[in-house]
Amino acid sequence: MKIKLYIAYDGTKYCGWQVQKNAISVQQTLQDSIESVFGERYLLTGCSRTDSGVHAKRFCCSVSIADDVNIPAEKIPIALNHYLPDDVSVLEASYISDDFHPRYDAKYKEYEYLILNDTIKDPFLTNKVFHYPKKLDVDKMNMATKCFIGKHDFAAFMSSGSSVEDTVRTIKYFTVSEHENIVKINVAADGFLYNMVRILVGTLIDVSNGKIAIEDIPSIIEQKDRKKAGFTAPPQGLYLNKIVY
Amino acid sequence: MKIKLYIAYDGTKYCGWQVQKNAISVQQTLQDSIESVFGERYLLTGCSRTDSGVHAKRFCCSVSIADDVNIPAEKIPIALNHYLPDDVSVLEASYISDDFHPRYDAKYKEYEYLILNDTIKDPFLTNKVFHYPKKLDVDKMNMATKCFIGKHDFAAFMSSGSSVEDTVRTIKYFTVSEHENIVKINVAADGFLYNMVRILVGTLIDVSNGKIAIEDIPSIIEQKDRKKAGFTAPPQGLYLNKIVY
Repeated sequence: MKIKLYIAYDGTKYCGWQVQKNAISVQQTLQDSIESVFGERYLLTGCSRTDSGVHAKRFCCSVSIADDVNIPAEKIPIALNHYLPDDVSVLEASYISDDFHPRYDAKYKEYEYLILNDTIKDPFLTNKVFHYPKKLDVDKMNMATKCFIGKHDFAAFMSSGSSVEDTVRTIKYFTVSEHENIVKINVAADGFLYNMVRILVGTLIDVSNGKIAIEDIPSIIEQKDRKKAGFTAPPQGLYLNKIVY
Repeated sequence: MKIKLYIAYDGTKYCGWQVQKNAISVQQTLQDSIESVFGERYLLTGCSRTDSGVHAKRFCCSVSIADDVNIPAEKIPIALNHYLPDDVSVLEASYISDDFHPRYDAKYKEYEYLILNDTIKDPFLTNKVFHYPKKLDVDKMNMATKCFIGKHDFAAFMSSGSSVEDTVRTIKYFTVSEHENIVKINVAADGFLYNMVRILVGTLIDVSNGKIAIEDIPSIIEQKDRKKAGFTAPPQGLYLNKIVY
Protein backbone atom coordinates (compact mmCIF):
# COMPACT_ATOMS: atom_id res chain seq x y z
CA MET A 1 0.00 0.00 0.00
CA LYS A 2 1.23 3.46 -0.84
CA ILE A 3 0.52 6.63 1.12
CA LYS A 4 0.84 10.11 -0.35
CA LEU A 5 1.64 12.85 2.15
CA TYR A 6 1.62 16.62 1.86
CA ILE A 7 3.88 18.26 4.43
CA ALA A 8 5.02 21.75 5.43
CA TYR A 9 8.32 22.51 7.09
CA ASP A 10 10.44 25.36 8.34
CA GLY A 11 13.81 24.35 6.86
CA THR A 12 15.98 26.53 9.15
CA LYS A 13 17.41 23.65 11.19
CA TYR A 14 17.58 21.06 8.39
CA CYS A 15 20.19 20.17 5.76
CA GLY A 16 17.27 19.97 3.30
CA TRP A 17 14.84 17.19 2.45
CA GLN A 18 17.32 14.43 1.60
CA VAL A 19 19.11 12.22 4.15
CA GLN A 20 22.75 13.20 4.59
CA LYS A 21 25.56 12.06 6.82
CA ASN A 22 26.27 14.22 9.89
CA ALA A 23 23.24 16.46 9.37
CA ILE A 24 19.54 16.27 10.14
CA SER A 25 17.21 16.07 7.15
CA VAL A 26 13.44 16.47 6.93
CA GLN A 27 13.23 13.01 5.29
CA GLN A 28 14.93 11.33 8.25
CA THR A 29 12.78 13.28 10.74
CA LEU A 30 9.58 12.20 8.96
CA GLN A 31 10.83 8.60 8.63
CA ASP A 32 11.38 8.58 12.40
CA SER A 33 7.77 9.62 13.02
CA ILE A 34 6.49 7.01 10.51
CA GLU A 35 8.48 4.36 12.38
CA SER A 36 6.91 5.52 15.67
CA VAL A 37 3.38 5.28 14.22
CA PHE A 38 3.67 2.20 11.95
CA GLY A 39 6.25 0.25 13.99
CA GLU A 40 8.64 -0.26 11.08
CA ARG A 41 11.29 1.76 9.20
CA TYR A 42 10.11 2.77 5.70
CA LEU A 43 11.89 4.81 3.04
CA LEU A 44 10.18 8.01 1.87
CA THR A 45 10.33 9.32 -1.71
CA GLY A 46 10.18 13.11 -2.05
CA CYS A 47 9.01 15.36 -4.90
CA SER A 48 12.22 17.37 -4.81
CA ARG A 49 15.46 17.89 -2.94
CA THR A 50 15.43 21.21 -1.12
CA ASP A 51 18.61 22.97 0.02
CA SER A 52 19.67 23.56 3.59
CA GLY A 53 17.54 26.32 5.15
CA VAL A 54 14.88 26.24 2.40
CA HIS A 55 11.23 25.89 3.49
CA ALA A 56 8.20 24.09 2.08
CA LYS A 57 4.54 25.06 2.34
CA ARG A 58 3.26 21.98 0.43
CA PHE A 59 5.89 19.32 -0.23
CA CYS A 60 4.68 15.95 -1.52
CA CYS A 61 6.22 12.61 -0.60
CA SER A 62 5.16 8.97 -0.63
CA VAL A 63 5.86 5.81 1.31
CA SER A 64 5.04 2.14 0.63
CA ILE A 65 3.91 0.39 3.80
CA ALA A 66 2.91 -3.16 4.72
CA ASP A 67 -0.47 -4.20 3.26
CA ASP A 68 -1.94 -5.11 6.63
CA VAL A 69 -1.67 -1.58 8.03
CA ASN A 70 -5.15 -0.36 8.73
CA ILE A 71 -5.23 3.32 9.69
CA PRO A 72 -7.89 5.58 8.11
CA ALA A 73 -6.13 8.18 5.93
CA GLU A 74 -7.64 11.13 7.80
CA LYS A 75 -6.10 9.94 11.09
CA ILE A 76 -2.55 9.76 9.70
CA PRO A 77 -1.66 13.51 9.87
CA ILE A 78 -2.56 13.81 13.56
CA ALA A 79 -0.76 10.55 14.41
CA LEU A 80 2.45 11.61 12.63
CA ASN A 81 2.29 15.21 13.92
CA HIS A 82 2.22 13.84 17.46
CA TYR A 83 5.79 12.56 16.95
CA LEU A 84 7.11 15.32 14.69
CA PRO A 85 8.98 18.39 16.00
CA ASP A 86 7.24 21.79 15.78
CA ASP A 87 8.99 22.72 12.53
CA VAL A 88 7.55 19.85 10.44
CA SER A 89 3.83 19.22 9.95
CA VAL A 90 1.86 16.65 7.94
CA LEU A 91 -1.01 18.54 6.28
CA GLU A 92 -2.80 15.74 4.40
CA ALA A 93 -2.56 11.99 3.81
CA SER A 94 -4.27 9.70 1.29
CA TYR A 95 -3.88 6.12 0.03
CA ILE A 96 -2.74 6.16 -3.59
CA SER A 97 -1.97 3.65 -6.36
CA ASP A 98 1.41 1.88 -6.20
CA ASP A 99 2.68 3.40 -9.44
CA PHE A 100 2.47 7.01 -8.13
CA HIS A 101 5.85 8.76 -8.03
CA PRO A 102 6.08 12.20 -6.29
CA ARG A 103 8.89 13.43 -8.54
CA TYR A 104 8.30 11.80 -11.95
CA ASP A 105 4.53 12.37 -11.95
CA ALA A 106 4.72 16.11 -11.22
CA LYS A 107 3.49 18.33 -14.09
CA TYR A 108 5.08 21.41 -12.56
CA LYS A 109 6.30 22.91 -9.30
CA GLU A 110 5.97 26.42 -7.96
CA TYR A 111 8.51 28.12 -5.71
CA GLU A 112 7.93 31.35 -3.83
CA TYR A 113 10.69 33.72 -2.69
CA LEU A 114 9.99 36.32 0.01
CA ILE A 115 12.05 39.49 0.42
CA LEU A 116 11.54 41.86 3.36
CA ASN A 117 12.24 45.10 1.49
CA ASP A 118 12.54 47.53 4.39
CA THR A 119 15.33 49.41 6.15
CA ILE A 120 14.06 47.93 9.44
CA LYS A 121 14.22 44.17 10.16
CA ASP A 122 11.17 42.26 11.43
CA PRO A 123 11.82 40.02 14.47
CA PHE A 124 8.84 37.80 13.51
CA LEU A 125 10.29 37.01 10.07
CA THR A 126 13.79 35.91 11.12
CA ASN A 127 14.92 32.99 8.89
CA LYS A 128 11.63 33.27 6.94
CA VAL A 129 12.53 36.03 4.47
CA PHE A 130 15.62 37.56 2.86
CA HIS A 131 16.00 40.98 4.49
CA TYR A 132 17.06 43.38 1.74
CA PRO A 133 17.00 47.05 2.88
CA LYS A 134 17.53 48.87 -0.45
CA LYS A 135 14.25 49.75 -2.26
CA LEU A 136 13.57 47.26 -5.09
CA ASP A 137 12.16 48.27 -8.49
CA VAL A 138 9.34 45.74 -8.79
CA ASP A 139 8.23 46.96 -12.25
CA LYS A 140 11.72 46.49 -13.64
CA MET A 141 12.02 43.05 -12.02
CA ASN A 142 8.69 42.05 -13.55
CA MET A 143 9.87 43.13 -16.99
CA ALA A 144 13.01 41.02 -16.54
CA THR A 145 10.99 37.88 -15.67
CA LYS A 146 9.52 37.92 -19.23
CA CYS A 147 12.95 36.98 -20.67
CA PHE A 148 12.92 33.69 -18.75
CA ILE A 149 9.41 32.43 -19.45
CA GLY A 150 9.23 29.44 -21.83
CA LYS A 151 11.75 26.75 -22.78
CA HIS A 152 15.43 27.67 -22.32
CA ASP A 153 18.76 26.12 -21.47
CA PHE A 154 19.28 27.41 -17.91
CA ALA A 155 22.91 26.21 -17.55
CA ALA A 156 23.96 29.77 -16.53
CA PHE A 157 21.49 29.54 -13.64
CA MET A 158 22.84 26.39 -12.02
CA SER A 159 25.42 26.19 -9.22
CA SER A 160 28.36 23.85 -9.73
CA GLY A 161 28.19 20.54 -7.89
CA SER A 162 25.26 19.17 -9.86
CA SER A 163 25.61 16.13 -12.10
CA VAL A 164 22.54 17.00 -14.21
CA GLU A 165 23.26 16.77 -17.95
CA ASP A 166 20.11 18.16 -19.50
CA THR A 167 19.84 21.78 -18.38
CA VAL A 168 16.81 22.69 -20.49
CA ARG A 169 13.73 23.62 -18.46
CA THR A 170 10.38 25.26 -19.23
CA ILE A 171 9.22 28.14 -17.02
CA LYS A 172 5.42 28.35 -16.98
CA TYR A 173 5.03 31.62 -15.10
CA PHE A 174 7.31 34.01 -13.24
CA THR A 175 5.93 37.07 -11.38
CA VAL A 176 7.04 39.69 -8.87
CA SER A 177 4.49 41.41 -6.61
CA GLU A 178 4.59 43.84 -3.70
CA HIS A 179 2.55 43.48 -0.49
CA GLU A 180 3.40 46.37 1.87
CA ASN A 181 7.10 45.82 2.65
CA ILE A 182 7.25 42.25 1.30
CA VAL A 183 8.30 41.53 -2.29
CA LYS A 184 7.03 38.14 -3.39
CA ILE A 185 8.48 36.25 -6.37
CA ASN A 186 6.59 33.24 -7.76
CA VAL A 187 8.06 30.95 -10.38
CA ALA A 188 6.69 27.69 -11.78
CA ALA A 189 8.49 25.24 -14.07
CA ASP A 190 8.54 21.58 -15.09
CA GLY A 191 11.75 21.27 -13.09
CA PHE A 192 14.51 23.35 -11.54
CA LEU A 193 18.30 23.03 -11.62
CA TYR A 194 20.52 23.18 -8.53
CA ASN A 195 20.04 26.67 -6.91
CA MET A 196 18.15 27.83 -10.05
CA VAL A 197 15.41 29.79 -8.22
CA ARG A 198 17.93 31.46 -5.92
CA ILE A 199 20.12 32.52 -8.88
CA LEU A 200 17.06 33.79 -10.81
CA VAL A 201 16.08 35.86 -7.73
CA GLY A 202 19.65 37.20 -7.38
CA THR A 203 19.57 38.13 -11.08
CA LEU A 204 16.28 40.04 -10.65
CA ILE A 205 17.77 41.95 -7.69
CA ASP A 206 20.84 42.77 -9.80
CA VAL A 207 18.47 44.04 -12.52
CA SER A 208 16.73 46.26 -9.96
CA ASN A 209 20.10 47.66 -8.88
CA GLY A 210 21.25 48.31 -12.45
CA LYS A 211 24.08 45.73 -12.28
CA ILE A 212 22.43 43.67 -15.03
CA ALA A 213 20.53 45.27 -17.95
CA ILE A 214 17.26 43.64 -19.00
CA GLU A 215 18.34 43.66 -22.66
CA ASP A 216 21.42 41.58 -21.76
CA ILE A 217 19.42 38.71 -20.24
CA PRO A 218 18.87 36.78 -23.52
CA SER A 219 22.63 36.72 -24.13
CA ILE A 220 23.33 35.75 -20.48
CA ILE A 221 21.03 32.74 -21.02
CA GLU A 222 22.72 32.04 -24.38
CA GLN A 223 26.29 32.07 -23.00
CA LYS A 224 25.56 29.35 -20.38
CA ASP A 225 28.17 30.87 -18.06
CA ARG A 226 27.23 30.92 -14.35
CA LYS A 227 29.49 33.94 -13.79
CA LYS A 228 27.40 36.13 -16.09
CA ALA A 229 24.15 35.61 -14.11
CA GLY A 230 23.30 37.30 -10.78
CA PHE A 231 24.24 36.29 -7.25
CA THR A 232 22.69 33.33 -5.42
CA ALA A 233 20.01 34.73 -3.09
CA PRO A 234 20.12 33.18 0.41
CA PRO A 235 17.99 30.09 1.23
CA GLN A 236 15.82 31.52 4.02
CA GLY A 237 13.51 33.40 1.61
CA LEU A 238 12.71 30.31 -0.48
CA TYR A 239 9.58 28.13 -0.18
CA LEU A 240 8.48 25.13 -2.22
CA ASN A 241 4.95 26.43 -2.59
CA LYS A 242 2.98 24.03 -4.73
CA ILE A 243 3.30 20.85 -6.78
CA VAL A 244 0.80 20.00 -9.49
CA TYR A 245 0.17 16.42 -10.72
CA MET B 1 18.14 64.57 26.37
CA LYS B 2 15.47 61.94 26.22
CA ILE B 3 14.91 59.48 23.38
CA LYS B 4 11.61 57.67 22.82
CA LEU B 5 11.91 54.30 21.07
CA TYR B 6 9.31 52.00 19.56
CA ILE B 7 10.54 48.42 19.37
CA ALA B 8 9.24 45.00 18.27
CA TYR B 9 10.44 41.71 19.70
CA ASP B 10 9.86 37.99 19.53
CA GLY B 11 9.76 37.17 23.24
CA THR B 12 10.41 33.40 22.88
CA LYS B 13 13.96 33.49 24.27
CA TYR B 14 13.45 36.26 26.83
CA CYS B 15 12.30 36.34 30.47
CA GLY B 16 10.19 39.37 29.47
CA TRP B 17 10.99 43.06 29.20
CA GLN B 18 12.35 43.65 32.70
CA VAL B 19 15.92 42.87 33.81
CA GLN B 20 16.07 39.74 35.99
CA LYS B 21 18.84 37.75 37.60
CA ASN B 22 19.93 34.58 35.75
CA ALA B 23 17.77 35.25 32.68
CA ILE B 24 18.04 37.39 29.57
CA SER B 25 15.58 40.27 29.28
CA VAL B 26 14.72 42.48 26.33
CA GLN B 27 15.60 45.54 28.43
CA GLN B 28 19.14 44.30 29.07
CA THR B 29 19.58 43.32 25.40
CA LEU B 30 18.51 46.79 24.24
CA GLN B 31 20.66 48.48 26.92
CA ASP B 32 23.65 46.52 25.57
CA SER B 33 23.04 47.85 22.05
CA ILE B 34 22.59 51.42 23.38
CA GLU B 35 25.93 51.09 25.17
CA SER B 36 27.54 49.91 21.89
CA VAL B 37 26.16 52.90 19.98
CA PHE B 38 26.38 55.69 22.61
CA GLY B 39 29.47 54.45 24.46
CA GLU B 40 27.83 54.54 27.88
CA ARG B 41 25.43 52.39 29.93
CA TYR B 42 21.97 53.98 30.25
CA LEU B 43 18.86 52.68 32.00
CA LEU B 44 15.75 52.19 29.87
CA THR B 45 12.19 52.79 31.09
CA GLY B 46 9.53 50.58 29.49
CA CYS B 47 5.79 51.09 28.98
CA SER B 48 4.97 47.72 30.53
CA ARG B 49 6.47 44.55 31.92
CA THR B 50 5.80 41.64 29.60
CA ASP B 51 5.93 38.01 30.74
CA SER B 52 8.43 35.42 29.63
CA GLY B 53 7.64 34.30 26.05
CA VAL B 54 5.26 37.21 25.34
CA HIS B 55 5.89 39.26 22.17
CA ALA B 56 5.59 42.94 21.29
CA LYS B 57 4.73 44.50 17.94
CA ARG B 58 5.05 48.11 19.19
CA PHE B 59 6.52 48.46 22.66
CA CYS B 60 7.50 51.96 23.81
CA CYS B 61 10.49 52.76 26.00
CA SER B 62 12.63 55.79 26.76
CA VAL B 63 16.19 56.56 27.75
CA SER B 64 17.88 59.74 29.02
CA ILE B 65 21.25 60.23 27.42
CA ALA B 66 24.08 62.76 27.74
CA ASP B 67 23.21 66.18 26.28
CA ASP B 68 26.21 66.25 23.96
CA VAL B 69 25.11 63.18 21.97
CA ASN B 70 24.45 64.27 18.44
CA ILE B 71 22.87 61.54 16.33
CA PRO B 72 19.92 62.43 14.08
CA ALA B 73 16.82 60.56 15.33
CA GLU B 74 16.23 58.79 12.00
CA LYS B 75 19.71 57.17 12.16
CA ILE B 76 19.15 55.68 15.63
CA PRO B 77 17.04 52.60 14.61
CA ILE B 78 19.59 51.39 12.04
CA ALA B 79 22.51 52.00 14.43
CA LEU B 80 20.85 50.06 17.29
CA ASN B 81 19.57 47.27 15.00
CA HIS B 82 23.14 46.68 13.87
CA TYR B 83 23.97 45.50 17.41
CA LEU B 84 20.66 43.84 18.29
CA PRO B 85 19.98 40.12 17.78
CA ASP B 86 17.44 39.10 15.08
CA ASP B 87 14.57 38.80 17.56
CA VAL B 88 14.60 42.47 18.68
CA SER B 89 14.18 45.42 16.33
CA VAL B 90 14.01 49.19 16.88
CA LEU B 91 11.21 50.50 14.63
CA GLU B 92 11.30 54.24 15.36
CA ALA B 93 13.23 56.77 17.43
CA SER B 94 12.54 60.40 18.29
CA TYR B 95 13.86 63.02 20.73
CA ILE B 96 11.19 63.86 23.29
CA SER B 97 10.71 66.20 26.26
CA ASP B 98 12.35 65.16 29.55
CA ASP B 99 9.05 64.77 31.39
CA PHE B 100 7.78 61.99 29.07
CA HIS B 101 7.16 58.68 30.86
CA PRO B 102 6.36 55.58 28.73
CA ARG B 103 4.17 53.98 31.43
CA TYR B 104 2.51 56.90 33.28
CA ASP B 105 1.72 58.89 30.15
CA ALA B 106 -0.07 56.05 28.32
CA LYS B 107 -3.80 56.62 27.76
CA TYR B 108 -4.36 52.96 26.94
CA LYS B 109 -2.64 49.82 25.70
CA GLU B 110 -3.87 47.17 23.28
CA TYR B 111 -2.90 43.51 23.45
CA GLU B 112 -3.55 40.96 20.72
CA TYR B 113 -3.83 37.21 21.30
CA LEU B 114 -3.47 34.80 18.36
CA ILE B 115 -4.91 31.28 18.38
CA LEU B 116 -4.21 28.78 15.58
CA ASN B 117 -7.58 27.05 15.60
CA ASP B 118 -6.84 24.04 13.42
CA THR B 119 -6.33 20.31 13.92
CA ILE B 120 -3.02 20.64 12.03
CA LYS B 121 -0.10 22.66 13.44
CA ASP B 122 1.71 25.26 11.33
CA PRO B 123 5.54 25.01 11.35
CA PHE B 124 5.84 28.72 10.48
CA LEU B 125 3.86 29.80 13.55
CA THR B 126 5.77 27.86 16.22
CA ASN B 127 6.02 30.00 19.41
CA LYS B 128 3.97 32.73 17.68
CA VAL B 129 0.42 31.45 18.35
CA PHE B 130 -1.40 29.23 20.81
CA HIS B 131 -2.25 26.06 18.87
CA TYR B 132 -5.75 25.04 19.93
CA PRO B 133 -7.18 22.22 17.76
CA LYS B 134 -10.83 22.14 18.93
CA LYS B 135 -13.15 24.42 16.89
CA LEU B 136 -13.84 27.68 18.77
CA ASP B 137 -17.26 29.37 18.87
CA VAL B 138 -16.24 32.91 17.93
CA ASP B 139 -19.79 34.31 18.17
CA LYS B 140 -20.16 33.02 21.71
CA MET B 141 -16.71 34.36 22.67
CA ASN B 142 -17.66 37.77 21.26
CA MET B 143 -20.84 37.81 23.31
CA ALA B 144 -18.80 37.01 26.43
CA THR B 145 -16.41 39.93 25.83
CA LYS B 146 -19.33 42.37 26.35
CA CYS B 147 -19.45 41.45 30.07
CA PHE B 148 -15.91 42.76 30.56
CA ILE B 149 -16.08 46.10 28.74
CA GLY B 150 -16.06 49.15 31.01
CA LYS B 151 -14.79 49.75 34.56
CA HIS B 152 -14.59 46.64 36.78
CA ASP B 153 -12.57 45.19 39.62
CA PHE B 154 -10.58 42.49 37.78
CA ALA B 155 -9.12 40.82 40.91
CA ALA B 156 -10.46 37.43 39.71
CA PHE B 157 -8.38 37.87 36.54
CA MET B 158 -4.99 38.37 38.19
CA SER B 159 -2.41 35.67 38.95
CA SER B 160 -0.98 35.56 42.43
CA GLY B 161 2.49 37.00 42.88
CA SER B 162 1.49 40.59 42.14
CA SER B 163 1.73 43.30 44.77
CA VAL B 164 -0.80 45.58 43.03
CA GLU B 165 -3.45 46.90 45.44
CA ASP B 166 -5.91 48.66 43.14
CA THR B 167 -7.35 45.98 40.85
CA VAL B 168 -9.91 48.22 39.13
CA ARG B 169 -9.27 48.67 35.40
CA THR B 170 -11.30 50.03 32.48
CA ILE B 171 -11.55 47.94 29.30
CA LYS B 172 -12.07 50.19 26.27
CA TYR B 173 -12.75 47.50 23.68
CA PHE B 174 -12.53 43.70 23.53
CA THR B 175 -13.19 41.80 20.27
CA VAL B 176 -12.79 38.31 18.82
CA SER B 177 -12.41 37.82 15.05
CA GLU B 178 -11.68 34.93 12.70
CA HIS B 179 -9.23 35.04 9.78
CA GLU B 180 -9.13 31.62 8.08
CA ASN B 181 -7.76 29.31 10.79
CA ILE B 182 -6.53 32.13 13.08
CA VAL B 183 -8.73 33.47 15.89
CA LYS B 184 -7.59 36.96 16.90
CA ILE B 185 -8.51 38.55 20.22
CA ASN B 186 -7.92 42.28 20.73
CA VAL B 187 -8.34 43.98 24.08
CA ALA B 188 -7.51 47.55 25.10
CA ALA B 189 -7.52 49.00 28.61
CA ASP B 190 -6.02 51.78 30.70
CA GLY B 191 -3.91 49.10 32.36
CA PHE B 192 -3.69 45.35 32.86
CA LEU B 193 -3.12 43.22 35.97
CA TYR B 194 -0.56 40.39 36.14
CA ASN B 195 -1.57 37.74 33.50
CA MET B 196 -4.93 39.51 33.02
CA VAL B 197 -5.08 39.18 29.22
CA ARG B 198 -4.07 35.51 29.34
CA ILE B 199 -6.75 34.74 31.98
CA LEU B 200 -9.38 36.68 29.98
CA VAL B 201 -8.43 34.61 26.88
CA GLY B 202 -8.58 31.36 28.87
CA THR B 203 -12.02 32.40 30.15
CA LEU B 204 -13.28 33.05 26.60
CA ILE B 205 -12.03 29.60 25.52
CA ASP B 206 -13.79 28.05 28.54
CA VAL B 207 -16.96 29.90 27.45
CA SER B 208 -16.60 28.45 23.93
CA ASN B 209 -16.25 24.95 25.42
CA GLY B 210 -19.27 25.35 27.71
CA LYS B 211 -17.18 25.18 30.90
CA ILE B 212 -18.19 28.73 31.82
CA ALA B 213 -21.66 30.15 31.04
CA ILE B 214 -21.84 33.72 29.72
CA GLU B 215 -24.54 34.60 32.26
CA ASP B 216 -22.17 33.62 35.12
CA ILE B 217 -19.45 36.09 34.10
CA PRO B 218 -20.82 39.11 36.05
CA SER B 219 -20.81 37.03 39.25
CA ILE B 220 -17.31 35.66 38.50
CA ILE B 221 -16.11 39.28 38.28
CA GLU B 222 -18.06 40.12 41.45
CA GLN B 223 -16.59 37.27 43.55
CA LYS B 224 -12.95 38.36 42.92
CA ASP B 225 -11.81 34.73 43.18
CA ARG B 226 -9.11 33.70 40.71
CA LYS B 227 -10.30 30.07 40.87
CA LYS B 228 -13.71 30.96 39.39
CA ALA B 229 -12.23 32.46 36.19
CA GLY B 230 -10.83 30.47 33.25
CA PHE B 231 -7.36 29.00 32.75
CA THR B 232 -4.28 31.12 31.97
CA ALA B 233 -3.69 30.87 28.21
CA PRO B 234 0.00 30.30 27.32
CA PRO B 235 2.32 33.27 26.64
CA GLN B 236 3.32 32.51 23.02
CA GLY B 237 -0.01 33.77 21.58
CA LEU B 238 0.24 37.19 23.28
CA TYR B 239 1.46 40.43 21.68
CA LEU B 240 1.64 43.95 23.08
CA ASN B 241 0.15 45.50 19.98
CA LYS B 242 -0.23 49.22 20.51
CA ILE B 243 0.22 51.94 23.09
CA VAL B 244 -1.63 55.22 22.81
CA TYR B 245 -0.40 58.47 24.45
